[in-house]
Amino acid sequence: MTITPQAPAAARAVPVLPTSGPVRPLGLGQVSLTGGFWGGRQSVNAGATLAHCESWMERLGWLANFDRVADGTTSPDRPGWSFSDSEVYKLLEALAWEAGRTGDQGAEAAIKRLTARVARAQDPDGYLNTCFGHDGQQPRYSDLEMGHELYNTGHLLQAAVARLRTAGEDDLVRVARRAADHVCRTFGADGLPGICGHPEIEVGLAEFGRATGEDRYVEQARLFLDRRGHGTLRDIPLGRAYFQDDVPIRRAEVWRGHAVRALYLTAAAVDVAVERGDDELLRAVERQWERSVERRTYITGGMGSRHQDEGFGEDWELPPDRAYCETCAGIASIMVSWRLHLATGDVRYTDLIERTLYNVVAASPSPDGRAFFYANPLHQRSPGRPADPAQVSPRAEGGTRAAWFEVSCCPTNVARTLAGLAGYLATTDDDGLQIHQYAPCAIRAELPDGRPVAVDVETDYPSTGAVRVRVAADASSPWTLSLRVPAWAAGATVTEDGRTRPVEPGTLAIRRAFRTGDVVVLDLPMRPRFTWPDPRIDAVRGCVAVERGPEVLCAESRDLPDPGGLDALVIDVGSGPEPDGGGARVRGRIPAHIGRGWAYAPGRPAPLAEDGERFDVPLRPYHSWAHRGPASMRVWLPAEGTPRP
Amino acid sequence: MTITPQAPAAARAVPVLPTSGPVRPLGLGQVSLTGGFWGGRQSVNAGATLAHCESWMERLGWLANFDRVADGTTSPDRPGWSFSDSEVYKLLEALAWEAGRTGDQGAEAAIKRLTARVARAQDPDGYLNTCFGHDGQQPRYSDLEMGHELYNTGHLLQAAVARLRTAGEDDLVRVARRAADHVCRTFGADGLPGICGHPEIEVGLAEFGRATGEDRYVEQARLFLDRRGHGTLRDIPLGRAYFQDDVPIRRAEVWRGHAVRALYLTAAAVDVAVERGDDELLRAVERQWERSVERRTYITGGMGSRHQDEGFGEDWELPPDRAYCETCAGIASIMVSWRLHLATGDVRYTDLIERTLYNVVAASPSPDGRAFFYANPLHQRSPGRPADPAQVSPRAEGGTRAAWFEVSCCPTNVARTLAGLAGYLATTDDDGLQIHQYAPCAIRAELPDGRPVAVDVETDYPSTGAVRVRVAADASSPWTLSLRVPAWAAGATVTEDGRTRPVEPGTLAIRRAFRTGDVVVLDLPMRPRFTWPDPRIDAVRGCVAVERGPEVLCAESRDLPDPGGLDALVIDVGSGPEPDGGGARVRGRIPAHIGRGWAYAPGRPAPLAEDGERFDVPLRPYHSWAHRGPASMRVWLPAEGTPRP
Repeated sequence: MTITPQAPAAARAVPVLPTSGPVRPLGLGQVSLTGGFWGGRQSVNAGATLAHCESWMERLGWLANFDRVADGTTSPDRPGWSFSDSEVYKLLEALAWEAGRTGDQGAEAAIKRLTARVARAQDPDGYLNTCFGHDGQQPRYSDLEMGHELYNTGHLLQAAVARLRTAGEDDLVRVARRAADHVCRTFGADGLPGICGHPEIEVGLAEFGRATGEDRYVEQARLFLDRRGHGTLRDIPLGRAYFQDDVPIRRAEVWRGHAVRALYLTAAAVDVAVERGDDELLRAVERQWERSVERRTYITGGMGSRHQDEGFGEDWELPPDRAYCETCAGIASIMVSWRLHLATGDVRYTDLIERTLYNVVAASPSPDGRAFFYANPLHQRSPGRPADPAQVSPRAEGGTRAAWFEVSCCPTNVARTLAGLAGYLATTDDDGLQIHQYAPCAIRAELPDGRPVAVDVETDYPSTGAVRVRVAADASSPWTLSLRVPAWAAGATVTEDGRTRPVEPGTLAIRRAFRTGDVVVLDLPMRPRFTWPDPRIDAVRGCVAVERGPEVLCAESRDLPDPGGLDALVIDVGSGPEPDGGGARVRGRIPAHIGRGWAYAPGRPAPLAEDGERFDVPLRPYHSWAHRGPASMRVWLPAEGTPRP
Repeated sequence: MTITPQAPAAARAVPVLPTSGPVRPLGLGQVSLTGGFWGGRQSVNAGATLAHCESWMERLGWLANFDRVADGTTSPDRPGWSFSDSEVYKLLEALAWEAGRTGDQGAEAAIKRLTARVARAQDPDGYLNTCFGHDGQQPRYSDLEMGHELYNTGHLLQAAVARLRTAGEDDLVRVARRAADHVCRTFGADGLPGICGHPEIEVGLAEFGRATGEDRYVEQARLFLDRRGHGTLRDIPLGRAYFQDDVPIRRAEVWRGHAVRALYLTAAAVDVAVERGDDELLRAVERQWERSVERRTYITGGMGSRHQDEGFGEDWELPPDRAYCETCAGIASIMVSWRLHLATGDVRYTDLIERTLYNVVAASPSPDGRAFFYANPLHQRSPGRPADPAQVSPRAEGGTRAAWFEVSCCPTNVARTLAGLAGYLATTDDDGLQIHQYAPCAIRAELPDGRPVAVDVETDYPSTGAVRVRVAADASSPWTLSLRVPAWAAGATVTEDGRTRPVEPGTLAIRRAFRTGDVVVLDLPMRPRFTWPDPRIDAVRGCVAVERGPEVLCAESRDLPDPGGLDALVIDVGSGPEPDGGGARVRGRIPAHIGRGWAYAPGRPAPLAEDGERFDVPLRPYHSWAHRGPASMRVWLPAEGTPRP
């Protein structure tokens, strides 16, 4: 089917709107979250996180940086990293989705307030950056490798896309047009042959091109993509793989280097492949996804095995303790998978989105929306220290959610993702509606031929596995309701008209002339289950994880009889895991006679000593870890015993 | 016993000479390596590495930096890092040991050549540094955190110690005196209250104080030690633990932060504790050694689990693939353990030295002495690329020995360690001789009462385990020959007078009125053995290592039927390991039906599929890995089967 920018306004209120594809995303005007797991987080985001982000950026001078440019008072002592402008833009994007979603006047006022300050800092030729090109600063584009100038602009464009699609042309969009035009003039086919060390301009330009209907922006994105991978940037000690300038993207086999960079670039590659009908490029990205998801992705969906370069490791290099799994990389992974789903209709992509939403994105913010995880390791060896809510955390690690970071990309990224989350929930095609993520919501859409598809989803998923889809409009002719059955959901059932039958993981498609009040209940099996890792993942050999529905569970030290014993805990896989509220319960023990002295002492026995009394180990959703305060934690649990067949 | 600087010249030719202690190190004039494993490496070091280092430093302008200071032509574009001066000093130290050991005129000429250039760069007040304090440079001591000024001076002092103890007062020693006096004036009790971000000045000052008999240098070292740990340095994103300024050393419980920094500091702490009779400090260091060696040290003796900060990880955080195990950290660990041994006489310290010598220090240089490993991981997932011998490696990783590095601390550190190695082999006390490391050598010493102790050691250890100690002088009264029996050497025997008896790990002490020609044969069991890790080391759970004598063995991809199969190799611990030349042989298989797709696929079986034909897997000494070219490699091998009791 073909999708045009002339689609109804409500249908355009989405972060990603390809001009063609097998399915079309439903927009914020078509899908409304009405509560539940994600609705609650969206409320906290709206009520706390948005203001929290603005207030920190005011306090640290990241907003005043725009004023200083406008007032001609720039100097070398500018506060913030070179990418701090992008945080303002990501907040603007979040505010735009929020205002679009709810019409909230506070959000609307904040957009105007921030836009005015941003607009004043734009140079007459459209260049807009508070770190380069003014008095006391390095010249424009003098450090493409690490200067983040185009990266910042990319986020400005994404903010403008959100605004354009929810409110129409305004000052922010006009600022973005001038900035995008400046980029095209400066880096076009006849301009500087450079690229930005941190991809983002590409995905920003591509979507801005879609949103404005101006193909030249898409073309500039294509140009940036094609330039990359040829050693266009200077080499750095981490190597050009760090910023994916080692191999052209269509020849790459796997994601490597800095994870957020790799994934933002890949998202843009899907956009360009779709807009240009470049199937070779699309297939290349699909192959990269396959290998990277198989071999370089954590069970949480987290990506990035290394702190050193915030990057992917090698195949099977997935240490739980040193997992970086940056929150932003999880968001970037969702951006990639959503684009691949829109380009292919394949539900493996929306499966991964669900995993990443629950186990990376949901893990980051604290319940009050005013503190965040930046890194999301699967094993915390030492409890973090309680974070001071008035202090900036200099570090991306620690096991405690921090109010703000010196490099504070994650809070605003979470904010824009949660505010725009409805744009990732459902799609339509010529024949019906596809629901990908299960949350209480109202869906009101039309098929291309004008037939209404309206359903209400009632569920407290993932607390329980029952998803009731109630039809809210009569159909004059049959249409197909498609429900994603997650890959983990062996034993799922569907009930319609009082009849229950088993369904296989994949897609459940029900084609009927639905009537108002018709109900389809998908029942997903929520009994906790053991999950075994591929034997080539060395770092978790001999361990098992416990999952429940879409949630990965974890053990926290505070729930053990001896909190110091988490590093020696062994669990019995001969029974369990048993359900326990929204988590699970396994039997474990802490061997009393573990070794002393040299860790490789001659004669140390291979098997663990058979002592240590067994006790119940409660497991809770990983996304809620450290909610009760600092703790040590692990997802992968050393196992003993023989698993039940 | 008390040791004084007035000891005979031959006995003073050692890197570490405490003024008191239960044992006294034998010097380069008392112990001569006569071939074998270490003698061969010493020859390659003398014949290739020393000139290699000088030539690279000339080529890169690190030597010319001294000329530029002398000629007043400094500028902001100085080549090399701020610590490149220290490489020149470490080379000078290596040359001094080499000249002292052999009287080699080439080494002597190189010392004079380099000393002349260094001396010209010294400022009138004794300050000597090519990176700070001159035209176009930052002011002196303006970046104590990362500027390495005092670090460089510490290495100058160590070079001067080597020269003073092998050749006596000369220009290098005079330069060092002026530099040390400058440091004492500038940072004394009434001076700047700073410390250096990279410890080294402390250990340099302490030994220079011992070598010159000037206690004020020791006192300055004490002052630097006491200042550290109170947040004296500015905080950095990695935290003050990076440079051990988080906790005063006598209150610290474990080594943490940058490994080389932590260990150089600890070496100085032992020196100061001994010189000041500070038993509290000595015990604190011993406790840190115990916990760090138990929980933060690799089976190779390597230290440093993290690339990010070249640092220690947390307890039990010992990933084999991302092990940093910097060569310099291995050398620094030997410096610490040797000082602790000299302070206590405990052979656990010389046990660790042996392990580290064979499995870290010996691994670094290539057989030709012109390429080096910087990091020493225990698992290389992808074969490195062949290194270009004409290029500087920008990176510390890669699986291939490189000719030189941008940060090239390791080659000169290996060079000084090998040149001075005889200083770590044996000690005497009032009653006899203690031999700690087994290598063919001649030992000619006297006890404090003048009795000669002279032995020749004949062995091709570690090729075989027989160590023949042949007495080379008649004794008028009994003395004690002590031989270290390594902790791994269960089943060792000793033969004297034709009678063989078992000996326990620890110290074998034989007290006799030895006569010329008396022979004691220590026979160490060289059958390869399985070594199981402490179950709390998550990263190698379910794996086993194979050791043979003091050598850790490893598997290399090129020795497998399918080189790509190393990441799925499983070995059978129900039999073997069998001896195989200088290595071992185990039975292994590569399961044919390992998983495909998502690494945590539902229903993936816990045990490995029982297929894949068994084949012999040869294992070779870890220190020789990649000698045959790039390969993937692993020390820890996933195990199946039941170990023999």
